[in-house]
Amino acid sequence: MPPKTPPVDDPFAIPADTLGMDPAEMRRLGHKVVDMVIDRLERRNSEPVLVTGSAPALAEQLGGPLPESPQDPDASLELMAEIAFGHMQHGDHPRYFARVPGPAAFASTLGEWMGTGFNAINASWGGASGPATVETTVCSWVAEMLGLPAHSEGVLLSGGSMANFTGFCVARTEIGAGVAYLTDQTHASLPRNLRQMGLDADEIRILPSDDGLRMCPDSLVAAIEQDIAAGRRPMMVVATAGSTNTGATDPLDAIADICAARGLWLHVDGAYGAPAAITSQGRATLAGLARADSVVLDPHKWFFQPYDMGLCLVTRPGALERCFAMNPEYLRDVQATSGEVNYGNRSLELTRRARAMKLWMSLRTYGAPAFRDAVQRGIELAEFTESHLRSQPDTWDIITPAQLGIVCFALKGADAADHAARAARVTQSGFATLSSTMLKDRSALRLCTINPLTTEGDVTRTLEMLAQG
Amino acid sequence: MPPKTPPVDDPFAIPADTLGMDPAEMRRLGHKVVDMVIDRLERRNSEPVLVTGSAPALAEQLGGPLPESPQDPDASLELMAEIAFGHMQHGDHPRYFARVPGPAAFASTLGEWMGTGFNAINASWGGASGPATVETTVCSWVAEMLGLPAHSEGVLLSGGSMANFTGFCVARTEIGAGVAYLTDQTHASLPRNLRQMGLDADEIRILPSDDGLRMCPDSLVAAIEQDIAAGRRPMMVVATAGSTNTGATDPLDAIADICAARGLWLHVDGAYGAPAAITSQGRATLAGLARADSVVLDPHKWFFQPYDMGLCLVTRPGALERCFAMNPEYLRDVQATSGEVNYGNRSLELTRRARAMKLWMSLRTYGAPAFRDAVQRGIELAEFTESHLRSQPDTWDIITPAQLGIVCFALKGADAADHAARAARVTQSGFATLSSTMLKDRSALRLCTINPLTTEGDVTRTLEMLAQG
Repeated sequence: MPPKTPPVDDPFAIPADTLGMDPAEMRRLGHKVVDMVIDRLERRNSEPVLVTGSAPALAEQLGGPLPESPQDPDASLELMAEIAFGHMQHGDHPRYFARVPGPAAFASTLGEWMGTGFNAINASWGGASGPATVETTVCSWVAEMLGLPAHSEGVLLSGGSMANFTGFCVARTEIGAGVAYLTDQTHASLPRNLRQMGLDADEIRILPSDDGLRMCPDSLVAAIEQDIAAGRRPMMVVATAGSTNTGATDPLDAIADICAARGLWLHVDGAYGAPAAITSQGRATLAGLARADSVVLDPHKWFFQPYDMGLCLVTRPGALERCFAMNPEYLRDVQATSGEVNYGNRSLELTRRARAMKLWMSLRTYGAPAFRDAVQRGIELAEFTESHLRSQPDTWDIITPAQLGIVCFALKGADAADHAARAARVTQSGFATLSSTMLKDRSALRLCTINPLTTEGDVTRTLEMLAQG
Repeated sequence: MPPKTPPVDDPFAIPADTLGMDPAEMRRLGHKVVDMVIDRLERRNSEPVLVTGSAPALAEQLGGPLPESPQDPDASLELMAEIAFGHMQHGDHPRYFARVPGPAAFASTLGEWMGTGFNAINASWGGASGPATVETTVCSWVAEMLGLPAHSEGVLLSGGSMANFTGFCVARTEIGAGVAYLTDQTHASLPRNLRQMGLDADEIRILPSDDGLRMCPDSLVAAIEQDIAAGRRPMMVVATAGSTNTGATDPLDAIADICAARGLWLHVDGAYGAPAAITSQGRATLAGLARADSVVLDPHKWFFQPYDMGLCLVTRPGALERCFAMNPEYLRDVQATSGEVNYGNRSLELTRRARAMKLWMSLRTYGAPAFRDAVQRGIELAEFTESHLRSQPDTWDIITPAQLGIVCFALKGADAADHAARAARVTQSGFATLSSTMLKDRSALRLCTINPLTTEGDVTRTLEMLAQG
């Protein structure tokens, strides 16, 4: 796109901004945003990892009456950085160990900035053939990295909840309505998805997990047979690859055998853990992943993308469109000829920004090996954490070992309230943040270590602070 | 957030980028993105309004093998701008008259850039009290501008399809499952939403629209009574405020009376047209809007935001959480005390980027009157278009008059194929783009004029080109 100078007397000259901002001012403010973002990234070690504000104070600073006159944009940007973004989790901070970190890499941010700045959309081929090609490209790249079949097709959503919902709808279209099987370690958003799809309570079967907090194949078979005997129709098994609580992975190969024998859809929620399959260690842990009918992962977690980005990959060609196409007759022709995709026909989202640009930009800029190394680093950091905890057996109990970047542990003699209070004190110090959780009625502290910038010193100092209380 | 210099010997110093990009390079590339975006905005008059590419050629340029080594980021940014964004609709171009334009204003882009750069999320109060306060603030500001009740509550989604889906789920939770009433002018994504919610075919009632392409209250009452007589349970009426086809608005007041008398939920899909209610002329057209139980609008259309942004406003306090909360007991307390909102409990989306920042930034920067003037300008441009067409009665027929920024018309003697070919030729010229459509078996051309930068000359030259063929 070489710069072109429009003729000075062009009767069709267009102002740069829709609502009249001066181009020089646009440029100055744009550069300021870039500098504010990079200034912050350069001084994260002086930043509290998580700050929660009080609702009335925040409402006074960020809310107030509808602006009936223009406000100074510099002041607004500074208010946004200091107050809005000063009162949230900084999921990209190396000592953010809570829930699941969001260690976004900068080249992804560049891609998202471009998409927003060019106001790119990816809803229909006719209006978005370029962005659609980018989305198809990144879906293929990720499927290849995970070891999924080459004919896998995908669609990008906001996150795991929406991506799982999308996979569930596809399963119902392909298999027909019926019972879905989950475990008590399945992510909490998944039963909500099933309810909003219209499933009745007796079509949502929550199985107790085994001692390793994984789905038990025998229990699954028993539940399926019980449902068939009761006149219900099994539809889908939802397996987890890297649970949010512990990083545990259900026995995917055994579950795939059960699904294949009975004609059930196998959906794998790998929102957290599926990216581990890009390493050889993770690929072994996730053996059987490639046999799934649908797989969900969140690139804003372990693929180092800024929020938001969930990916639903389906290994049955055409299944996404069979579920969501609004004009399937027309589409069938298009699909048959040349791989043109109307992405508005692959989920409930019709308007969709060009979400793929950031993943494309970052996979190109850093190269795939950088992603593999960074994921491997997260796996090893959790293993380091476990081994450090084991070296202090008078202080710590391991509750669940290092699994795909997560380790759960307990302070000897501490109960849930004590664990929660210690985690809260670390958070309040500003140095780090972590979660406490309940695992089969046992209280635990939990570190999720997928940020490759995290150091061993970050981990040991955090554990020291926890032990001191 | 004053700049702080970390101590040089800080053992907890943090590299600026997760995957190792040098900070000076980050800054250079960030500034380059800003300049590329603003360069493009300054020379839109030399840019084709819509270009569709061929799938194999685009796949060759944008796809290819997984990058196993780092690629030059400057080359990637240029490829993105030239090829990916060079093959799409430019919905922010003043001569983009097709479907619904996306006339994004630059201050919104700044807000979105900040949210992405700070990797902001808005899922839970604990992790996002700042961004959550901004979302609550903009929902209130928009509700006030539209004239909705002050206790209205909202949630931001990707667009109209997801926002309507969210409202539909809330309706079912509040009213109980049953029949939904739409018209043949309802947006095509809405029956898809209802099907994926699990509604049966006989629970989705598509009513024929009247001669003005609006819902007919008498037909609605007849359909409701017929369903009750057949043992079905009416649930919700979906009215349209500004249809995509013609800009027509259903008689909201009459429909609200019918809903109130029978205990039905009134959902208004104003994805396109609801923002017109911020002008006095639009407020009159949309009389009755404030009586809706839920209202959807797309700020990426007539609120001048970049993609994506849909808003679902619900006028029954607590209804969003009653539908979507994963822990309603806990939440009830929080709601009662201080207005803290866990936005992950207001839709199926759990991970959600901080989508509100751009609307906050732009309402502050330009001030609300700039939005009102810009929407009024779009209404008047369609009126100008209609009157210009009427001044050439030998050439043009008006099919539907100017309604909320849309006018539909026909070239005398032309059929659907001729209309489509003429619209395609204008698009291929690069000068402008517009849609053709079918209205009750009558072929029509259609101009949607909501970009306030559009000039009367843009309209008349486009019509001239259409007439010349």
